[in-house]
Amino acid sequence: MNNRQSTTSATATSSRPPHSRAHTLSRRFSALSTAEQGNDDPVDPAEQAVADEIDEIKRYEDFTTIDWVQDAAREQQRRKLRRQERAGFFEREGRLGWRRKAWEAYDAAQGWIVVTLIGSAIGVNAAFLNIITEWLSDIKRGYCTTAFYLNESFCCWGAEDGCAEWHHWSGFWPLNYLLYILFSMLFAFASARLVKSYAPYAAGSGISEIKCIIAGFVMKGFLGFRTLVIKSIGLPLAIASGLSVGKEGPSVHYAVCTGNVISRFFVKYRRNAAKTREILSACAAAGVAVAFGSPIGGVLFSLEEMSSYFPLKTMWRSYFCALVATAVLAAMNPFRTGQLVMFTVRYDRSWHFFEVLFYIVIGIFGGVYGAFVITWNLRAQSFRKKYLSKYPILEATILATATAILCYPNMFLRIDMTESMEILFQECEGGHDFDEICDPRNRTSIIFALLVATLLRTFLVIISYGCKVPAGIFVPSMAIGAAFGRMVGILVQALHEAFPGSAFFSACDANQTCITPGTYAFLGAAAALAGIMHITVSVVVIMFELTGALTYILPTMIVVGVTKAVSERLGKGGIADRMIWFNGFPFLDNKEDHSFGMPASTCMTKDPTCLIVAGISIAEIEAIMALSKFQGFPVVEDLDEKILLGFIGRTELRYALDKAERERMPKRTLCSFKTEHHSSASSEAAPLDLQQFVNATPLTVHPNLPLETTMELFKKLGPRVILVEHRGRLTGLLTVKDCLKYQFQAEALEHPREAGRHGGQEALWQVIRSSATWVADKVRNISGGRLRLGDEQANVAVDSEASQPLRQADEGDGHGDVELEDRREVI
Amino acid sequence: MNNRQSTTSATATSSRPPHSRAHTLSRRFSALSTAEQGNDDPVDPAEQAVADEIDEIKRYEDFTTIDWVQDAAREQQRRKLRRQERAGFFEREGRLGWRRKAWEAYDAAQGWIVVTLIGSAIGVNAAFLNIITEWLSDIKRGYCTTAFYLNESFCCWGAEDGCAEWHHWSGFWPLNYLLYILFSMLFAFASARLVKSYAPYAAGSGISEIKCIIAGFVMKGFLGFRTLVIKSIGLPLAIASGLSVGKEGPSVHYAVCTGNVISRFFVKYRRNAAKTREILSACAAAGVAVAFGSPIGGVLFSLEEMSSYFPLKTMWRSYFCALVATAVLAAMNPFRTGQLVMFTVRYDRSWHFFEVLFYIVIGIFGGVYGAFVITWNLRAQSFRKKYLSKYPILEATILATATAILCYPNMFLRIDMTESMEILFQECEGGHDFDEICDPRNRTSIIFALLVATLLRTFLVIISYGCKVPAGIFVPSMAIGAAFGRMVGILVQALHEAFPGSAFFSACDANQTCITPGTYAFLGAAAALAGIMHITVSVVVIMFELTGALTYILPTMIVVGVTKAVSERLGKGGIADRMIWFNGFPFLDNKEDHSFGMPASTCMTKDPTCLIVAGISIAEIEAIMALSKFQGFPVVEDLDEKILLGFIGRTELRYALDKAERERMPKRTLCSFKTEHHSSASSEAAPLDLQQFVNATPLTVHPNLPLETTMELFKKLGPRVILVEHRGRLTGLLTVKDCLKYQFQAEALEHPREAGRHGGQEALWQVIRSSATWVADKVRNISGGRLRLGDEQANVAVDSEASQPLRQADEGDGHGDVELEDRREVI
Repeated sequence: MNNRQSTTSATATSSRPPHSRAHTLSRRFSALSTAEQGNDDPVDPAEQAVADEIDEIKRYEDFTTIDWVQDAAREQQRRKLRRQERAGFFEREGRLGWRRKAWEAYDAAQGWIVVTLIGSAIGVNAAFLNIITEWLSDIKRGYCTTAFYLNESFCCWGAEDGCAEWHHWSGFWPLNYLLYILFSMLFAFASARLVKSYAPYAAGSGISEIKCIIAGFVMKGFLGFRTLVIKSIGLPLAIASGLSVGKEGPSVHYAVCTGNVISRFFVKYRRNAAKTREILSACAAAGVAVAFGSPIGGVLFSLEEMSSYFPLKTMWRSYFCALVATAVLAAMNPFRTGQLVMFTVRYDRSWHFFEVLFYIVIGIFGGVYGAFVITWNLRAQSFRKKYLSKYPILEATILATATAILCYPNMFLRIDMTESMEILFQECEGGHDFDEICDPRNRTSIIFALLVATLLRTFLVIISYGCKVPAGIFVPSMAIGAAFGRMVGILVQALHEAFPGSAFFSACDANQTCITPGTYAFLGAAAALAGIMHITVSVVVIMFELTGALTYILPTMIVVGVTKAVSERLGKGGIADRMIWFNGFPFLDNKEDHSFGMPASTCMTKDPTCLIVAGISIAEIEAIMALSKFQGFPVVEDLDEKILLGFIGRTELRYALDKAERERMPKRTLCSFKTEHHSSASSEAAPLDLQQFVNATPLTVHPNLPLETTMELFKKLGPRVILVEHRGRLTGLLTVKDCLKYQFQAEALEHPREAGRHGGQEALWQVIRSSATWVADKVRNISGGRLRLGDEQANVAVDSEASQPLRQADEGDGHGDVELEDRREVI
Repeated sequence: MNNRQSTTSATATSSRPPHSRAHTLSRRFSALSTAEQGNDDPVDPAEQAVADEIDEIKRYEDFTTIDWVQDAAREQQRRKLRRQERAGFFEREGRLGWRRKAWEAYDAAQGWIVVTLIGSAIGVNAAFLNIITEWLSDIKRGYCTTAFYLNESFCCWGAEDGCAEWHHWSGFWPLNYLLYILFSMLFAFASARLVKSYAPYAAGSGISEIKCIIAGFVMKGFLGFRTLVIKSIGLPLAIASGLSVGKEGPSVHYAVCTGNVISRFFVKYRRNAAKTREILSACAAAGVAVAFGSPIGGVLFSLEEMSSYFPLKTMWRSYFCALVATAVLAAMNPFRTGQLVMFTVRYDRSWHFFEVLFYIVIGIFGGVYGAFVITWNLRAQSFRKKYLSKYPILEATILATATAILCYPNMFLRIDMTESMEILFQECEGGHDFDEICDPRNRTSIIFALLVATLLRTFLVIISYGCKVPAGIFVPSMAIGAAFGRMVGILVQALHEAFPGSAFFSACDANQTCITPGTYAFLGAAAALAGIMHITVSVVVIMFELTGALTYILPTMIVVGVTKAVSERLGKGGIADRMIWFNGFPFLDNKEDHSFGMPASTCMTKDPTCLIVAGISIAEIEAIMALSKFQGFPVVEDLDEKILLGFIGRTELRYALDKAERERMPKRTLCSFKTEHHSSASSEAAPLDLQQFVNATPLTVHPNLPLETTMELFKKLGPRVILVEHRGRLTGLLTVKDCLKYQFQAEALEHPREAGRHGGQEALWQVIRSSATWVADKVRNISGGRLRLGDEQANVAVDSEASQPLRQADEGDGHGDVELEDRREVI
């Protein structure tokens, strides 16, 4: 919104930055921008940077934000009206008594009905997704001879280690391996293809966008029915493809979509943005709840991460929605284990105080992991945005192939992430022994395997998160943390066995096992999750609800606390917040606390386009609207004094003018924003009365009010604009974006960063291009031109010119998948 | 604040209520007021009610509220200044480098240092309190012969059922019983006496007051050192006395006191109310954490119940503080069980879907229990306020005696509440069998005992909560819920055994036990806790952290959800919120959502006392200040136009005038609130420049801004006043109390209540008086005048005239306890 206006003001500000060191700021600002956004234009970085920033923000300027203050005021009016109606009803009650009562009961219960419906839908969806995901994952390895639609565990119900009914594709392992890889490719391709063709918004995790939407940002279609369907279909495919992606972010997304789609059917929610926001928060809670089987964790996640504003009413709704969704999921019992949680771990031993030292190490790892992944993933994203945005399907397919090839040799990467976590979390006692992970003789090889798993998975997460399939980052992070934690645990165990008598281990009972490496894995998972998301309480609760390891509440809290402290030192904000920043969404972060020491007038638009209260014709207003893209206009008494009378939104104005046109009012009809003028003009035609569309009481502030207080007003009350008024006269106009722009500049000044990373990106791209060309050439030569790889398409497509038809294949117009289908038949 | 002003405006409003049915409103309002506050004056209820209301609010008008907007603005200024200082430091760095770095590190870490100190102090205090409470509870029954300072479990360390070292007071049980009662009396007396003499604020739970303090209300001494000490000493005495009171509310109170006392030593917190609020929220979390051994539950409790404003930063601080406190408590290990939680329960069986029906019954019980106890406890409180406020010590002593006498015959009431819960929660399998609670043959008697326990404890809670000793309501409520739940569980078990083959119980395995009554007790405790406090998520988490019963997460959530729904139907707000309402604290509840459909000007003070910007002498200002009690004054250009220039607080004005007096400025010196005026007046003496004390940018609103939006401003930004301005001119002034008064009236109109409960109170008081007189007479007759009971003092004291010396004894001037001491020696 306020497109032109903001552009002007931002440019103005950039040429006159808050402090005198204008050039330094611009350069630093440019460095920041280029490092993260992949801008490689070395000419005049200062202007370029600001222009980029504005472009980035402008991209959303046709998207609007909700004016919460206005929304609330309208709701109040509606309620008042309804009360009056009801009072009227009351008068003529009599035989209508029961109808009125029923209607009132329905009206009061509507919210709960909606939430119940939504919760049930989410639970059912989650159950199906679980079943489909398992089936797809298993079909990569074989099929059920009794009924093809059964996955391995259902096929072999009751049997411990496979059964005869479950048929592996072949007895020859390299063929199985190849089929495995091909299935992975196929799934990734299908998922990316669906996303690209039908619902581009279904790509990625969706958490950062939903955060902005809950804060009042409008993104049409992001929560639509198509997105819901494609996300629900694409998610099992993406997970089954073996990519290092998780299902929690997408779970939140489809849950919120469900909520949005269902609540549209109820007039109460269609009209009221605030109530819808409440529902969306509740759905986010339900999404996490069904993903992890952790209802309370979901509520807390919604509170801690998703919602900028979380009153207790919303908490109660979220609680209810998460409860319904989880109960439905439990009733459907998709795993037939009767358990909500992925895996229950029961630790028989408690912890010792000396172990806190190692817990701190794990906590530090979590923080470092988070900061590292966030930084590099943002770089990968900027690389993707710049070079790969045209080949989303190919990218996902190649990634899945590479993941399948790379992960197979490592025993912890080969299996499903959830499964691998389950194994890593277990105690060594009680007959759990996967690949002799507990055998002291294998220690070195296990430690090495875990180290490889940690590093490789981290690398895969960095390059996979953000590719154009539904993809979350929770479970991959937890799996990495678990691998690292188990490694630490085994090392500590080895240390203890090496020095059993040392004072350090004096708390250990000599006759009993002292160190439980499984608990370190558990703590590692918590640390990595906290490190990547920068959340604390939710992580602790989710970890409990996942495993039920109550004895370890203090260690978990210590680890997560250390992670949080380290994260705060190393970076600002979790991956969702950084993605918001990276994408330039108009989102004022509640967590940040600035002190600019500047008055509100510093970053306001000094001379907004105003409408005068009377004497302006329809034609004039239309001209003003055509010239400007502002989302609204202050109404003033006259243009010299600018005594502020109100504010009118563009939508309302448009509506009124359209109506006037339908009524064939002449264009020269004068408009009035104030009823008093109506009666005075008796000789002329009655003016068009626009008063009803004017917000006569927009929020106003004094020009010298501290900018921080103004931002608090935006954060906590959520108006679309705040007008700056001095002694009744309008002096300026402020939007969230004006504040954000100022904040970006101030931050760039406070925390200058290093520039010059974009050279590397270009070099990397060249390497990818040439190696791809080389591979394609080789394959073509060997196969004598008969076998054409997807890679080859990429190369050709990449090779700038004359690649139009092939690139189209990659972009998914039907040609590409025929190729792939063919290839599968060949093999 | 704004004493005179608000009185006037409120009276004005009462004679001209929002709607035309003035008389109805007044009458209803009066009914409401008298029912709850014990006003028995039947003459002109309308005026009386409003007068009472105002009295109630006025009581706090000398207490101020913090202006959060101003506070934040000041903090911004300070930060800016500090940054400049630091920048200056940076210039001449050189050899000062390390000093600067050390100072900066200290400055940055200060918050964490403070929280660590506070957390540790809370943990240590909690550990000692636990030890002392156990010792005091045990000393009622006997003493340790090896070392008198050991409680029974430490004395008999390792032994299961008592040991020879632990010596009971006598072998004759009636004597033991008598000693038990006498100890109870003594403890209650000591506790009440300490509270009355040294720290009256240490009485009760403190949760509602702390809620207001965290919201910005200033109550000097409520969080002081004396309160901390007395609360810490009085709490074990009160609990050991056997009164039906818990330790959680007081835990929160002493934790918050600790935080307040310790943070005062750090200049950062002494100056900044917002930062202190953060610390206090964190302390509240730590308080619950140590009381229940439930760190995450504590954080959530602080979030859900205590804090009106809870940004993520506060959550992180609370997390840390609760973690430190719990870790210290765990390290001190006061129970020597190595466990944080009071009791761990492990349920081997999972639940069945048909049991949900009974869970709903338990949930409904929780809601009904909460609503019932809140209503009747408020009535008890109003009775106490009216008739018993002069005899706090006597009241507590009698209550403890009555509790001891009444509870002894019931096996569940006789033992400690925590212990009774532990027994009730247990499964029947695994050798736990207290008094054959699991024996099917005893079923009828057990059910009867549980029913009696439920009802009697409910009655005792109603009359005990609010008496003048440190007293919480959490654990008593949970104990009641557990008794009821166990009763339901046993009934369900009996039902199952009666109809084992019915379709309803088809989910049960015929060969195994199906119903676990212990889980019903667990759920009943959750329901009662949720019902009394109206919290949801915290209850679920606390219940888990208490017991670790993860399998029961869905049942717990269902029960708590049903309780919450029922509570919302039956009453408004938990006991803490109702206490705030009852006490008339200026607290705008975030949970409530009103639609008045009125503009802000409806309830504003129309004609606030203003100061003109220049030309007013010191003497005149002093006269204005002497005449009015407003906490601040708008500064206007002149008294006719009232162009608003700013707002000056009373404190600042007082300070400036005192300073002027010290500088011997003549009283006729003119004051200026604007620097520009300074230079123009050249011939006369320089005016007193008060500009620096003026807040030039007070929050202002348009007179027609909806009242709801204005209240949102108060709730979310927390200014002390909002000025109403129209086109630059001041038209009115709004405070939280103006809003609250309007809200009370609107509520009274919306939800009229029944009057006429006060007659009952008077009758009850007459009964108590006459029966007390009768008892005292009897005792005096029997003992031939030698034995004088406390009761007797009460009677005499109550008997209006000529009771001055005796009443003084009750009020605790030393005479009373000599009497009591004597009595103990006699027996």
